[in-house]
Amino acid sequence: MGAGPAGLTLAHLLRAEGVDCVLLEAESRETVELLPRAGFLEEWAVRALERRGLAGPGLLSAEAHGDCEFRLDGTRHLFRYGDLSGHRHIVYPQQRLVTDLVRGYADEAGGDVRFGVRDVAVHGIRTSRPTVTYTDPGDGQPRTLACDFVAGCDGARGSSRAAIPEGGVEVFRQDLGVGWLALLAEAPPSAERVVFGLHPQGFAAHMARGPRTTRYYLECPPGDSPDNWPHERVWSELRTRLRARGAPSLNEGELIERRVLDMHSYVVEPMTYGRLHLAGDAAHLVAPVAAKGMNLALNDALLLADAFRAYYREGDDSGLEGYSDACLRRVWQYQDFNAWLSETVHGPSSGDAFRAGTAAARLRRMTRSERAGRAVAALYIGSDADH
Amino acid sequence: MGAGPAGLTLAHLLRAEGVDCVLLEAESRETVELLPRAGFLEEWAVRALERRGLAGPGLLSAEAHGDCEFRLDGTRHLFRYGDLSGHRHIVYPQQRLVTDLVRGYADEAGGDVRFGVRDVAVHGIRTSRPTVTYTDPGDGQPRTLACDFVAGCDGARGSSRAAIPEGGVEVFRQDLGVGWLALLAEAPPSAERVVFGLHPQGFAAHMARGPRTTRYYLECPPGDSPDNWPHERVWSELRTRLRARGAPSLNEGELIERRVLDMHSYVVEPMTYGRLHLAGDAAHLVAPVAAKGMNLALNDALLLADAFRAYYREGDDSGLEGYSDACLRRVWQYQDFNAWLSETVHGPSSGDAFRAGTAAARLRRMTRSERAGRAVAALYIGSDADH
Repeated sequence: MGAGPAGLTLAHLLRAEGVDCVLLEAESRETVELLPRAGFLEEWAVRALERRGLAGPGLLSAEAHGDCEFRLDGTRHLFRYGDLSGHRHIVYPQQRLVTDLVRGYADEAGGDVRFGVRDVAVHGIRTSRPTVTYTDPGDGQPRTLACDFVAGCDGARGSSRAAIPEGGVEVFRQDLGVGWLALLAEAPPSAERVVFGLHPQGFAAHMARGPRTTRYYLECPPGDSPDNWPHERVWSELRTRLRARGAPSLNEGELIERRVLDMHSYVVEPMTYGRLHLAGDAAHLVAPVAAKGMNLALNDALLLADAFRAYYREGDDSGLEGYSDACLRRVWQYQDFNAWLSETVHGPSSGDAFRAGTAAARLRRMTRSERAGRAVAALYIGSDADH
Repeated sequence: MGAGPAGLTLAHLLRAEGVDCVLLEAESRETVELLPRAGFLEEWAVRALERRGLAGPGLLSAEAHGDCEFRLDGTRHLFRYGDLSGHRHIVYPQQRLVTDLVRGYADEAGGDVRFGVRDVAVHGIRTSRPTVTYTDPGDGQPRTLACDFVAGCDGARGSSRAAIPEGGVEVFRQDLGVGWLALLAEAPPSAERVVFGLHPQGFAAHMARGPRTTRYYLECPPGDSPDNWPHERVWSELRTRLRARGAPSLNEGELIERRVLDMHSYVVEPMTYGRLHLAGDAAHLVAPVAAKGMNLALNDALLLADAFRAYYREGDDSGLEGYSDACLRRVWQYQDFNAWLSETVHGPSSGDAFRAGTAAARLRRMTRSERAGRAVAALYIGSDADH
């Protein structure tokens, strides 16, 4: 269920193992291939996709980032997490990964994916033969799929989560107490790297998305309207909050996306309910401070594919039994790091001078102490997270 | 001003440099020598005292601790911060250090310390000749000391802070939102090390203070009354919250101290106002989660002594000019680490399952990842804190 990075990766790997699999997606192929979302893949995830034959030439030749920059009080603090950890981020927009995976699965491997399905519902997930019903978008007729298992990769508001009765799983939530205005500008990046601007007026960020597209974020009140942020105000605030001595000026451009994110996170425990296994955003959301969401989704998909492989090849269900615990270890490490980074970047604008003081101390420590830097870098790049 | 660890260390070092110095203390000598407070000195602080001839035989032969234990869900997690950092904590109750320092300063070196002074007030600290007035406890007569400088080592409610006009410095505060019932038991320690019990009913801790005395802490509502904690309830809660598989049972004993600490922290910026330099609790309080307070007080005293030495020997006032910034670097690192450790140990009892989840993730990471463990250990022992 769901043709995002998790669902597509899993479907691909199941098909490669000869496991009969149908991928259902409520949106059209065009929509999922255009939807701008995450943009950073951790190196281990790219290597894992490559080992399984799922990394296309675009991904393998994509730009790698190994440092980012924090700006505070007009000073630039470079954080060389690539050198400190030995690993990099691969800059690859989520929609490009999705496009590659759809092409590989549907067009090249002949995998069964059904876009634009409606009225999707899951039934009997506590039985050994769950079914999925949906309305075919072509003929408007109802269809039923009889399944061994259902993999719920369709996000927080998808049909998978809806199929779990109240109390069937626990949902742990964290509200970061801030909003982020997510912007996509038709403008070349203004720096070679990710820039985090820590400023009393609010956090701001800059992230390259390609040679002609740049993502920016501006902290705003939770629930703020994008209408409050006309072009001039956006660029004025970005200039103010990202200002630093020696920093190049911003390349301005048309804003082609302007959404307010209510910054929050959640974790579903366990990630398995009967024969339904959740993966990606259906199981956990990581507020996009540390660029973790897509990486966790891939981790889930890889673990779930391995578990199904053991089950179908060897009748070994220990992987499926342990699936939730195995995923949740990394989920909680990423959530903890993300909350820590959030506290750091939002400290100076929190209105609480004590939080601003500890945030500045963290920033000094991670950029000046090699030992502290190595620990932070390993979390930022996801290489010290399976505890 | 103030015969605690900071004031005594500073007075000692000034006297050794031939700088004329008077130490004023509102309490009696007996009181300061008996007051049970902190108990852990970081190794760098002991070495610094030793290099300056201020470490007595008691301190130099005191027990060293290099690991502590966290208990969660009945499991014991050993944190070997000594091996991870190469440094240890020295277990030495604050009142023993104070007793050593008073003896060395007053009895052996003939230093001028005046106990039991009343009505202490500081005047003219923005001038080049501040004065301190007080009432002599012997004859009840007023006295005046004309000074070059005043070192305010007399805590948050002392005369030094009172001498700074409203708005003269900023005070940044953090409320941890919990109370701790601080207990001193006439009982041998129940473990060889510090034990942190993370429990849904509330945090608990065990800390050795000597062969026949043990400090315990129990999380309680802020502002709770010690009267709500009779002997039986205390020991019952300690047993519950510190329970773990394979852990020895607690050695019970009479409770000779029972205070409720409102867990909060603060930082005064800058630590200098005119000719008044603050040190120790007058300048910052670190809620006693990570045993930082006495160590920061000594760091301040050592830096201030060095600054005075340069000023009086060489006429170099750069140390005094930079005193506040130099201290505050370590202060903010310690505050940040203390807040992090507080969040970790109070997560499971916060009533917030997300905070409990991230706290458990931190505990797994610091005890299972050597890289993460090294970073935490260096902060816990204060060897990576001058950033």
